[in-house]
Amino acid sequence: MLFSRYLIPTLKETPADAVVPSHILMLRAGMIRRLAAGIYTYLPLGLRTIKKIEAIIREEMNRAGALELLMPAVQPAEIWQESGRWGYYGPELLRFQDRKGGDFCLGPTHEEVITQIARNEISSYRDLPMNLYQIQTKFRDEIRPRFGLMRGREFIMKDAYSFDLDEDGARESYRKMYDAYTRIFQRCGLQFKAVEAGTGAIGGSVSHEFQVLAGSGEDAILACSACDYAANREKAECMGETEAAEEPEGLETAEGSPSASSHPDPPREEIAAVDTPDVKTIEELSAFLRVDPKNICKTLVYLADAHPVAVMLRGDHEISETKLADVLHCDELLLADEATIQKATGAPVGFAGPVGLKKKMPVFADYALKGFSGGVAGANEKDKHFIHVYADRDFPEEIAYRDLRLAEEGEPCPRCGNGTYESYRGIEVGQVFYLGTKYSERMNASVLDENGKPRVLVMGCYGIGVGRTMAAAIEQNHDEHGIIWPFSIAPFPLIICPVGSEARVEEVS
Amino acid sequence: MLFSRYLIPTLKETPADAVVPSHILMLRAGMIRRLAAGIYTYLPLGLRTIKKIEAIIREEMNRAGALELLMPAVQPAEIWQESGRWGYYGPELLRFQDRKGGDFCLGPTHEEVITQIARNEISSYRDLPMNLYQIQTKFRDEIRPRFGLMRGREFIMKDAYSFDLDEDGARESYRKMYDAYTRIFQRCGLQFKAVEAGTGAIGGSVSHEFQVLAGSGEDAILACSACDYAANREKAECMGETEAAEEPEGLETAEGSPSASSHPDPPREEIAAVDTPDVKTIEELSAFLRVDPKNICKTLVYLADAHPVAVMLRGDHEISETKLADVLHCDELLLADEATIQKATGAPVGFAGPVGLKKKMPVFADYALKGFSGGVAGANEKDKHFIHVYADRDFPEEIAYRDLRLAEEGEPCPRCGNGTYESYRGIEVGQVFYLGTKYSERMNASVLDENGKPRVLVMGCYGIGVGRTMAAAIEQNHDEHGIIWPFSIAPFPLIICPVGSEARVEEVS
Repeated sequence: MLFSRYLIPTLKETPADAVVPSHILMLRAGMIRRLAAGIYTYLPLGLRTIKKIEAIIREEMNRAGALELLMPAVQPAEIWQESGRWGYYGPELLRFQDRKGGDFCLGPTHEEVITQIARNEISSYRDLPMNLYQIQTKFRDEIRPRFGLMRGREFIMKDAYSFDLDEDGARESYRKMYDAYTRIFQRCGLQFKAVEAGTGAIGGSVSHEFQVLAGSGEDAILACSACDYAANREKAECMGETEAAEEPEGLETAEGSPSASSHPDPPREEIAAVDTPDVKTIEELSAFLRVDPKNICKTLVYLADAHPVAVMLRGDHEISETKLADVLHCDELLLADEATIQKATGAPVGFAGPVGLKKKMPVFADYALKGFSGGVAGANEKDKHFIHVYADRDFPEEIAYRDLRLAEEGEPCPRCGNGTYESYRGIEVGQVFYLGTKYSERMNASVLDENGKPRVLVMGCYGIGVGRTMAAAIEQNHDEHGIIWPFSIAPFPLIICPVGSEARVEEVS
Repeated sequence: MLFSRYLIPTLKETPADAVVPSHILMLRAGMIRRLAAGIYTYLPLGLRTIKKIEAIIREEMNRAGALELLMPAVQPAEIWQESGRWGYYGPELLRFQDRKGGDFCLGPTHEEVITQIARNEISSYRDLPMNLYQIQTKFRDEIRPRFGLMRGREFIMKDAYSFDLDEDGARESYRKMYDAYTRIFQRCGLQFKAVEAGTGAIGGSVSHEFQVLAGSGEDAILACSACDYAANREKAECMGETEAAEEPEGLETAEGSPSASSHPDPPREEIAAVDTPDVKTIEELSAFLRVDPKNICKTLVYLADAHPVAVMLRGDHEISETKLADVLHCDELLLADEATIQKATGAPVGFAGPVGLKKKMPVFADYALKGFSGGVAGANEKDKHFIHVYADRDFPEEIAYRDLRLAEEGEPCPRCGNGTYESYRGIEVGQVFYLGTKYSERMNASVLDENGKPRVLVMGCYGIGVGRTMAAAIEQNHDEHGIIWPFSIAPFPLIICPVGSEARVEEVS
């Protein structure tokens, strides 16, 4: 390819809307161009790297025994209604009607289509295991598309789906994909970590993200300093029930607080309601009552598949909605609106608490509240909070303690007990999901086993963002002069420059 | 690849909705599956042939100096408004709004996107000629998707766009693509004809279709028995003004007709109005007045870009809207509604005619009417027709004679004058268009020439339906036992069957 016959429209200036290195450098190098928010054309130079990544993915998927097919971008609503996701996928699912008024969407992912195919085309245990993949253009109507190919709306994805007769088989399929992904990202020349992750809108019970390590990464990762354990912060485990209960950490009273005892032992004061007019947030409450946020019990009300659930956390902790969704096994998890909170707790937003909470809804608390002692909590009454609240004495009996909060850098690793969490930033370029029977049960996809008995298929699904892998490679490999491509995915492996006026370069094919 | 590890879900029965061989055989061979009307999944076996066709296309496009890029499927309305096609593309253009209410469409073709890219990224004559292509999934919301991959809604297309400084350059780019297409379809092992064609919604002035010859083809083709000339019937030329005028063919009166003279010479009778109550169609009129349809002047009213136009044809001829659109240089051509006809002609539908037609609108007549003599025509008055109508005496002076009708098998070839038209059926698998400056002018895409003067880019565009090529290969190559693949696009070149119980096949990679 002669440079003079190629289209490489480089830019001297950094385009106004580009802030991260991969976006800036892909624009400046003439690799991509924006058509609309989150929608890009891959110019010839950019497409070359995309094709190289695709070729690596294809080789490793085929090597792992997966079969390539190609599913449609436009999908009918019916199959999404069958899986239930038509209802709860939210506005990221771009929906429209065709000229005859039929409901359709642009596929953000293809579990429904592939499960329908499996239901119709795979009938016997002898066909299993089966792993089907495609490299295809997807659309997700992100509310805030940004960072070029890092968070686009239209994007190229490799998605694979495995089908097995039983859980052992499905775990083996999952492991094969985990290994294939490891090889794919190694061959792309990337520094990455496979970390445990939540399952989000895809669902399922086990998941790993493949995170390319880069300071500009959107994802927070915690990894143990001593053992192999690494997880997305949303998912990183905290010390469990016993450990948390044994540690009286965080129960010290803020100096001079009138509301909590600093003694580790009784005598305990009686629970008492105090006026907290218009004091709603943890910050306001901490200032108003002069109590450390650690000694405040924060209460959140969620709607899990439209049913209210109350969740308690220590005031200085943050909820992990990923963990909460896992605990609740729900498809949709939303913070409750004001009316729901009023109805469920009897009080407006800001005054909910565990004490005397109506028994209408399930109540969960983070492990760190197990030893909550002499602290503050909402009184389920407008402008009132309780002081001298003790978990063992005042919390409802039905409360269930779970790991519900975001872990912090420096916390002890709950897996090995030796190390502490170190923090990284990552760019998620791939994710593998152990789906189980979430889709196959709802869509009635089963095969006959050795004894002629129908068995619901056990599924996994596995995605790689092709454009995002390209972007992540740049985020990780660049300097002030530009992109430093890993050799395997460089658009051109070498450039021949004639030096001296007599030199000529000729193309040979 | 071991057959036992592959997914080939064959069917014994012909699926109910499949009528043409390619659709039936692709379903039965487990190559495709329907997801919704006109929307198909390519199963692994089907995708292999698709990929082989794509590889041939890529090689020949690259050999012709074209550069591959990849444009988005989702396109913003703005660029379609710039080109004007947002207004007149019609309901085949699938339109929708994103979550923020912005107007978008699913790309049925990419002239707008590529012209925007050319406008922004190509600035100098030194960058020319430039040919950019992609292989990409498109969507056209066909009113009646049918025949499997032959007329789907979602389909894979190779589309290329050439940019040149002048018409000579553009013609050379067109020729290169014509040659590349010839090689592509030869390499796919297909019997085809390149035929002259209309330009439809794409526009432009010159076009060839590559038609795979097959009895089940949707397109009628006429080819000269003596010379090279071949064209889509919509476009096939008829004898021109002089020839048609010289031939008094078709002016014989139906036996016993009271309304037309059978004498080639005067005396001519005076034009006269007769009552034809509720007699509106050519068939009704022919029966009612006992006159041959050849001696009736048929009048059609069109809206060309919303302006009424009257068109006259001999009663036994059919209009070619392709030819009419070419003559009118319009973007949108629709048969006029009743109200427009009433307003434009002063009479309801069925009674329009050339005599005394108001001068509000342009009036065209097919060449075959040039010698119209003593025939019947609408009187532009309800329930009235004229008899004894002579073109030279009674037609409006401003009438313009053009080639406007569909040619028929057996007609003389107007190019060589020696042969006659033979008729074929074809499946259009590719089309090349000389666009000229239709898009570049509207979207202001220009470069600087050697003298630093801006020059509007001269464009061509070139499409191949990848899935349709696969379907056409099957339509042309099958028997009662199934598909007989051209070797170059067979999903697998060979199958090894172990014979005897001890035989084993092992996979080596």
